[in-house]
Amino acid sequence: MKLATVAHGGRRTAAVLDGDHWRALPADDLSTLLATTAPDRFAGLAGARLPGAVPVLPLPSPRKVVCCGLNYADHITEMGRELPDHPTLFAKYADTLTGPEDDLVLPKGLDVDWEAELAVVVGAELSGADRDLAERSIAGYTVANDVSVRDWQRRTLQWFQGKAWDRTTPLGPLVVTPDELDPVAGVEVICRVNGAERQRGNTRTLVFDAADLLAYVSAFTTLRPGDVVLTGTPGGVGMGMTQPVFLADGDLVETEIPGIGTLRNRFRLADPRS
Amino acid sequence: MKLATVAHGGRRTAAVLDGDHWRALPADDLSTLLATTAPDRFAGLAGARLPGAVPVLPLPSPRKVVCCGLNYADHITEMGRELPDHPTLFAKYADTLTGPEDDLVLPKGLDVDWEAELAVVVGAELSGADRDLAERSIAGYTVANDVSVRDWQRRTLQWFQGKAWDRTTPLGPLVVTPDELDPVAGVEVICRVNGAERQRGNTRTLVFDAADLLAYVSAFTTLRPGDVVLTGTPGGVGMGMTQPVFLADGDLVETEIPGIGTLRNRFRLADPRS
Repeated sequence: MKLATVAHGGRRTAAVLDGDHWRALPADDLSTLLATTAPDRFAGLAGARLPGAVPVLPLPSPRKVVCCGLNYADHITEMGRELPDHPTLFAKYADTLTGPEDDLVLPKGLDVDWEAELAVVVGAELSGADRDLAERSIAGYTVANDVSVRDWQRRTLQWFQGKAWDRTTPLGPLVVTPDELDPVAGVEVICRVNGAERQRGNTRTLVFDAADLLAYVSAFTTLRPGDVVLTGTPGGVGMGMTQPVFLADGDLVETEIPGIGTLRNRFRLADPRS
Repeated sequence: MKLATVAHGGRRTAAVLDGDHWRALPADDLSTLLATTAPDRFAGLAGARLPGAVPVLPLPSPRKVVCCGLNYADHITEMGRELPDHPTLFAKYADTLTGPEDDLVLPKGLDVDWEAELAVVVGAELSGADRDLAERSIAGYTVANDVSVRDWQRRTLQWFQGKAWDRTTPLGPLVVTPDELDPVAGVEVICRVNGAERQRGNTRTLVFDAADLLAYVSAFTTLRPGDVVLTGTPGGVGMGMTQPVFLADGDLVETEIPGIGTLRNRFRLADPRS
């Protein structure tokens, strides 16, 4: 199944793709639907066709958004670090997320960088789960860009303040269920800036895969349906370049995972008067 | 005012202290009340007396719990670091919090340490706030212990995975409004383990005070009524001792701020069969 939250006729609804058409699912968005209904029941709930529906932020209200850093061997090398024994984790908020075509609006003077990522959507409550249970509890996969404010990320030892700026992590456009996508076998994770490819990694090279991460996080905190785990970014970020490059006003960031879709987000400087 | 969420007659309610008696406020807890009602209206809403009411976790559902590390000059020195230009921030969850008298239950084999802290409760929505607005938006102060799993905290560069174990950060017992408590003038923050004093700091020595922290966080993410910011811990943590000491099964951790109250939490090893 390909799932989304779509805008249609002035309102939002969870939806499932049926051929070329979106069909309504009985909730305002996927966060709400996952909170009440197991993903394996979604197919039987598909309602009316929604002509002209457009995917928006699929999961507007996860309680937890956990991110893994340093998880692709090539990116770890790029950052000058060694392969890890444990995943490096940090947190974002529901407020940090934004839609698949939304502008990324930030004040002037920040070092804003891109990080294309595969994101995992939790489909069941998980506490102290082993890898097998974690794997069976994946609702689906989507695309994220862990857009990072590098100067704030580096102000202190803790990355959080560079990673949790409101409406800076685009997510979507679709959530694809595990029967249709296998990141262990490998999917490509691509980032283009103004059309130039900056990142291309493959999830088969992840040090910790989706099931590893869900199990690891569930050892210390409960994950619930609709929570999101970002799996880290491959090499090619702006700060890793010989001459570091950051986003400028008007730059177009495209984040793609074939089989899921593409995020298209323009970077805009905030109006200093606003 | 002294506010709390109290257990009374098999249910929970927000409450305000009137002399020696708790009086009901019109919400199930302070998180819910703050979401709908400005703190300056609370006094006029006090209802029936609640004889025998007992304070529980005052804020069960903050959307954001932001923590500051390395904020007391003596603790910074103890950890071998220099005074910072910016606050070091990390995140916890609502799930991380627990009540003022609850046991702290964790699996065997972890290095569990104490960190007594002053916690600030946000009273208004704050985005891009300056220090003055942030100061006027403080709903009150409470006591917290940022109980930390040091071995997980040190597994990677990011502390989060040692700081966000479910039900390990006791909070409460009261929330005291700013007209009755002035941390800038100074309040003592004390931790005792099995009756022996391990920490005693004074909030007048904070590098970043409550208003500084709320303003700083609001630069990147919106704070809302009922959100909680922990201000850091003074010297005297277990891992800072010449021979590091961690909590053992049955240890009693008491965390006190005179003028607010005392948390009393017993550390218990989880039953390995559970």
